[in-house]
Formats: sequence, C-alpha cells, structure tokens
Amino acid sequence: MMEDVKVFGLWASPFTQRVVWALKLKGVNYEYIGEDLFNKSNLLLQYNPVYKKVPVLVHDGKPIAESMVILQYIDETWPQTPLLPQDAYQRANVLFWSKFIDEKTVDMMKFFRYDGEEQEKAMKENWESLRVMEKESGLSEKKFIGGNRIGLADLALGWVAHTLEAMGDVIGVKFITPDAFPHLHSWMGNFLEIPAIKNNLPPHEHAVEYFTEKRKMFLAMNYHHHHH
Amino acid sequence: MMEDVKVFGLWASPFTQRVVWALKLKGVNYEYIGEDLFNKSNLLLQYNPVYKKVPVLVHDGKPIAESMVILQYIDETWPQTPLLPQDAYQRANVLFWSKFIDEKTVDMMKFFRYDGEEQEKAMKENWESLRVMEKESGLSEKKFIGGNRIGLADLALGWVAHTLEAMGDVIGVKFITPDAFPHLHSWMGNFLEIPAIKNNLPPHEHAVEYFTEKRKMFLAMNYHHHHH
Repeated sequence: MMEDVKVFGLWASPFTQRVVWALKLKGVNYEYIGEDLFNKSNLLLQYNPVYKKVPVLVHDGKPIAESMVILQYIDETWPQTPLLPQDAYQRANVLFWSKFIDEKTVDMMKFFRYDGEEQEKAMKENWESLRVMEKESGLSEKKFIGGNRIGLADLALGWVAHTLEAMGDVIGVKFITPDAFPHLHSWMGNFLEIPAIKNNLPPHEHAVEYFTEKRKMFLAMNYHHHHH
Repeated sequence: MMEDVKVFGLWASPFTQRVVWALKLKGVNYEYIGEDLFNKSNLLLQYNPVYKKVPVLVHDGKPIAESMVILQYIDETWPQTPLLPQDAYQRANVLFWSKFIDEKTVDMMKFFRYDGEEQEKAMKENWESLRVMEKESGLSEKKFIGGNRIGLADLALGWVAHTLEAMGDVIGVKFITPDAFPHLHSWMGNFLEIPAIKNNLPPHEHAVEYFTEKRKMFLAMNYHHHHH
C-alpha cells in the first residue's frame, strides 16, 4: 500500500530537521512542502490551528503538530530503527531528556536575538544548560543519550551540532568545545557520523548566510523596540 | 512480588496530584513522602539533580522526575486502566494536548503571583489558553480530551478543576464558568465525578487556606522586588 506522508517545514528550522532526520533514519518516503513564514499556506493554518507553526506531519490526510509529538508518532508507526528503548525505565530516561532539551531549545536560541547585556545573560544560561547535559545526561558512558544507538533525545538535541554552530559562527562564539564539554563534543561527532543525519543537513555556508540575515533582522527589531 | 513504589511530593502541587491520581486510577499502592519546599530532603536532591523538584516517582529504587514523564512511565508499567489510546494517531492527539496543557500550567498560575497590570495581563493569557482548549481540543464531542475515558491529558489539566478554583477563590475570579467555557465546564464535572479523582483531592478549604498564605508571600516578594 502506498502511504501518503507529507512534511510541512522550513529548511532552517531545528524543529523541522528533527522530523526529517527521523523519517530518513526509518527510511520512510515523504513529500516535503517548504513553508514561507511570512506567508504561511492555508493548509498549514488548517493543519495546526493551535500554534500555526511548522513542522506538521500529515499521514494519510491526518495532521500532527509539535516536533516531539511527531517523533513519537513516527516511532510508533514505523517501528524499524527504534528511537525509544524497549525498557520502560530507559524510555522514561530518554523522554526526560527529550523534554529537557525541547524546553531549552527556544531559550538557547535567545542569545542570537540580542546583543549587549541581554546576549550575555542568554549566553550564561546556555552554558548552564549545556553543563547540566554534560554532567547529568550520562554521555560520559554512552555514545548517545539513550544508549549506543541514536534516539529521540539525540534528534531533539541535534540542532546544537548544526544550527547552534552556524549561529555561533555568525556571532563569533563557540559553545561546545572539547575543553568545556568533552562528552557533548564527542556526542556531536557521533551524531554527525550517522548517514541519515550527515546526508540531511543544510550546507553550513547556506545556514551561516541565512542566520547572518536573521541576525540583522533581530537587531533591527530590537532597536525599533527599544526606541519606540 | 511486592513492588516498592514511592512518591516524593507536595500535597498542594498540581504536578504531584497528577501522579497521585494516575496511581490511584491504576490501583497501584505506594508510599507518599511529603517534601518541605523550604528544606528539601537529600533524597529528593539526589533523585532529581536536574530540577530538584517534586514530584519524583521511585520504583524499585529507580527514580523518575517530571510529572508528564512519570505519567507515561506509570501507563507503560501498569497497563490496567490505560491513560493513552491504543491507536497511534489518537495517542499523538492526547500527547499533543498533554504537552500544550503542561506548558501552559506554570504560565496559567502567574496571575496568582501578581496584582495590578501584571495580573491583568496574566489573566488575559489565561482566558486565551482556555479559549484554545475550549475550541480546539474536541471537548464539544467527547467527555474527556482523549475520548470517553479519562486519560493523560485530562490528568494534566486536572489542576484547573481544583487548584485554579482555589486560587480564583482567594482572588475573587472564576475562569471556567458555564457561560464562558461550556465544554471545559462540562469536562470539569466529568473529571470530578471519577472516584480516583474526587477521593484524592485536598479539601477545598484547606487549599484556599494554603493559597491565601501563598498569595501574601508572593505579594510581599513583589513589593520587595519592586522597592529594592
């Protein structure tokens, strides 16, 4: 039976990338529909009336929003290459870290919106979040957060191996160095070695160019906001 | 085999109540350990080093933190009275709403911390969150968010039927009225009828007394914060 799988996304969105990586890991064919954030399609608004955001997965006409919910759905629907361990306690551990990482993702992009004191403060919070992951997520003993195979929490964290690097390059800051975060740095290497990941990353220069423009926009918005 | 199940909690915490309700619904026996938030036990800090917060479930010596992660673990470990539908798409729908509700819970308690303009603003956001749930969560057609049985998203939302009411009584505001939110109001009735819920609610006067003290503390803190 031919399945109908569509992803409404934005190529530069870390949340979209999670979904793309999961489908590629599982070998699921899908149609990708790129959205224009300044002119969202009616279909996107209809499929995700609560958040009106990408990504949305549409499977046989039925829409699912929220990247972490989509990942769990993908894992249940296409069980090959499981993203969650079989054991309930280990699953809980992966879900705990997935939630931690998901909740930190938007916060951790804040440094990129601001300069000056606000940027400093946001950067400190990033170091603190990374420190918690470095110390508590068990990466000193495992290749990936869920064990020795890539899983749900790794896909959630994946953006730090690519988007955070691109954002950092624009600003001239590097968060995950081997000195500061040796385990996260090794994890990054392990993550980027997986074919479904490395073959499905936007080119780094392309991302840097995109975020350079974004950065200008954010700073202009802040200026506007502060002066009116 | 005797199972060893412990809950580290706080009786007035909506997050603790979710876990208690789930265990009661499933008929799982457990030992309850009340924490003092101003003098947390070493065990709590050891079991939840990332957040240092209740609730923590400890099952045969293994700790799990984060109420929504705990609920999924409980549902997988004790499958009787399932909290999630069997069908993957319906599961995704319940997980979507559970996440929405969980993320709004802390925000929706903000109105209680403030007065004046800040309170007004927080209250407006509450009406908006409730409006989204009233309109989009499908409660016009179902007794509960997941269908005709109580489930994960209902346990997440449960605090609005009790804690939000108590907070509202302290301040003199009622959010979920039959006029403003008829479907949420009916849901509240359905929710409070379930024996595992109604037999495991703190007495309303007890909650009102607790939140009256909390309110004084919050306002004193704001005053201190604004004037120093």
